[in-house]
Amino acid sequence: MGRLSSDPIGMHRVLEPQGVLPQAAFRLDTDPSIRDDEVRVRVERLNLDAASFRQLQGKHGGDGDAVRREVLEIVRGRGKMHNPVTGSGGMLVGTVEETGEGSPLGLAVGDRVVTLVSLTLTPLVIEDGLSRWDGLTEQVPADGYAILFGRSIAARVPEDLPAPLALAVLDVCGAPALAHRHVAAAVSSGVGPGGPLVTVIGGAGKSGSLCLAAARRAGARGTVAVVPHQTEADLLGPTGAGAGLADQVLVCDARDPVALRDAVAAAGGPADLTIVCVDVPGCEGGAILATADGGTVIFFSMATSFSAAALGAEGLAADVTMIVGNGYVPGHAELALEIVRSETAVRGLFERRV
Amino acid sequence: MGRLSSDPIGMHRVLEPQGVLPQAAFRLDTDPSIRDDEVRVRVERLNLDAASFRQLQGKHGGDGDAVRREVLEIVRGRGKMHNPVTGSGGMLVGTVEETGEGSPLGLAVGDRVVTLVSLTLTPLVIEDGLSRWDGLTEQVPADGYAILFGRSIAARVPEDLPAPLALAVLDVCGAPALAHRHVAAAVSSGVGPGGPLVTVIGGAGKSGSLCLAAARRAGARGTVAVVPHQTEADLLGPTGAGAGLADQVLVCDARDPVALRDAVAAAGGPADLTIVCVDVPGCEGGAILATADGGTVIFFSMATSFSAAALGAEGLAADVTMIVGNGYVPGHAELALEIVRSETAVRGLFERRV
Repeated sequence: MGRLSSDPIGMHRVLEPQGVLPQAAFRLDTDPSIRDDEVRVRVERLNLDAASFRQLQGKHGGDGDAVRREVLEIVRGRGKMHNPVTGSGGMLVGTVEETGEGSPLGLAVGDRVVTLVSLTLTPLVIEDGLSRWDGLTEQVPADGYAILFGRSIAARVPEDLPAPLALAVLDVCGAPALAHRHVAAAVSSGVGPGGPLVTVIGGAGKSGSLCLAAARRAGARGTVAVVPHQTEADLLGPTGAGAGLADQVLVCDARDPVALRDAVAAAGGPADLTIVCVDVPGCEGGAILATADGGTVIFFSMATSFSAAALGAEGLAADVTMIVGNGYVPGHAELALEIVRSETAVRGLFERRV
Repeated sequence: MGRLSSDPIGMHRVLEPQGVLPQAAFRLDTDPSIRDDEVRVRVERLNLDAASFRQLQGKHGGDGDAVRREVLEIVRGRGKMHNPVTGSGGMLVGTVEETGEGSPLGLAVGDRVVTLVSLTLTPLVIEDGLSRWDGLTEQVPADGYAILFGRSIAARVPEDLPAPLALAVLDVCGAPALAHRHVAAAVSSGVGPGGPLVTVIGGAGKSGSLCLAAARRAGARGTVAVVPHQTEADLLGPTGAGAGLADQVLVCDARDPVALRDAVAAAGGPADLTIVCVDVPGCEGGAILATADGGTVIFFSMATSFSAAALGAEGLAADVTMIVGNGYVPGHAELALEIVRSETAVRGLFERRV
């Protein structure tokens, strides 16, 4: 009997409620038999989303055994690692075990891959009880399997970079790709003169440092990094690991809109493009105020409030275009890996964290 | 003693927490004495945001007295009508009572105005206990006062339109202006051929019908309205009040992503631009799936979830630009009023609702 044909977005794996997307589903079908366009991956390691891991740790007061039990419980109950409180998942690394003959992903058995779609929509079975994990780190050694759909995205683990580094880079690779696209569009539409001024809130972080590098490559006339503490400013300073990434570094609480506006103005702003890369709530107003009329704000933070952004801009009579940071942009993995390979400052910042 | 000078964005009115924008504040100062650049308005009517009103109605099972009590409680507690669950507010109509000599708004005492900034940032005191309101309608007859800041936006109520109609139009005037801008940009960048195909989810509603008209004016090659029931489809059909607004009308539950994708595809889609104008949660996935690669989704619904949009697009590997609908676009009031004046179909739909 031939394999059942299936849907590239995985609707056939949705068990409940019927008719919603796998990402929105409560429970997915984890049948290991793959459909025509699916791929089964032998899981080696999960990378829990930072917000999800923080929530689990907090709930269990740092008790790693309890965190491990809850992760197992979530995956068993839902057929995927989808934290019901934070709504977020993470990603995984593993090895291709079987590919359907209709799979468009271009993967071969034995390929070591990282998934670039969220664990919140990836059918997953854990078979080792996470016995090698102490429940105290975001990166989780695991044995089991996961299913990729026709439209899932996965990247081969690059052989020239350590796996934890590659995993950390690929986790945030949508941000620099989208930053690059918007800066390039501003350059070609004549923003400037000399290109757009770009502010990155959270410039010393993972997605932030990649965005700073991407913005410069795409033709920004200047880059401003906003960081919360002097320690992070030092990282981007002349003797720091991230030296040279930003033209200017501002120490400022991005949740204080007037302080942020004034600091960016003093640095030559307002910015033509502001990119929010910090996972703390309450940065919408400051990002809007620190952006020029006719400019753009890209929100990559999962802590962004839709209504705070929409009503904040309206309330300030601010004519800014506000973008929901989409983690998928064609070529995103390649661009991010290339930046890390070639920019010592970005690599230096990542290596401090992995 | 002269008036205190103040901040055009109203920071001096923020009581708690300190340092956040008025929109983000828990509580505002409603002192009736105006600062140098402020304006005080005698309130005649509030127009509650649709998502907010729906939430309050649902919570109280349609008990109008309970809804009224809660609105009074919110305004008393926060110094503004800021629904803590939906995060949204609404707008008001009233008459200018006093203007600070430094006010840049160009208003005179006696002018009848509509505020075009959200009630979530407008200091407001209700003085009549909302005794003329039954709690069953979004439009709320009220007596009291409100404060406008230097950077607030207000429009004079046009004399050639009935006030409830004008209020309803101005309430959603950001949507057609932003739709017009994005369609025009798509036209000038060569999307098509023949311009972009535009889908409006909630096309028979207030913002939806304005968006349909704006999209056609800006050069859309086709317009598709998605509505939830045949009753609404009939409104846009050949004998309905809104006849001719949309080239095609689809009856489809926008919360069912695959059904929406397939319906729009059958109507000639996917769309180059999808505009979400319905105030129900769960439309993010369908809007993304029904939009072409490289296309754009504008979310005007206050029921939009930022994380559902961001993770949904990533999970579908959908290269769509997602825009947070900004209620402020220069010229928005004029454009919306002009559409209602000149398009019988739009006016017809509005008049059924006010």
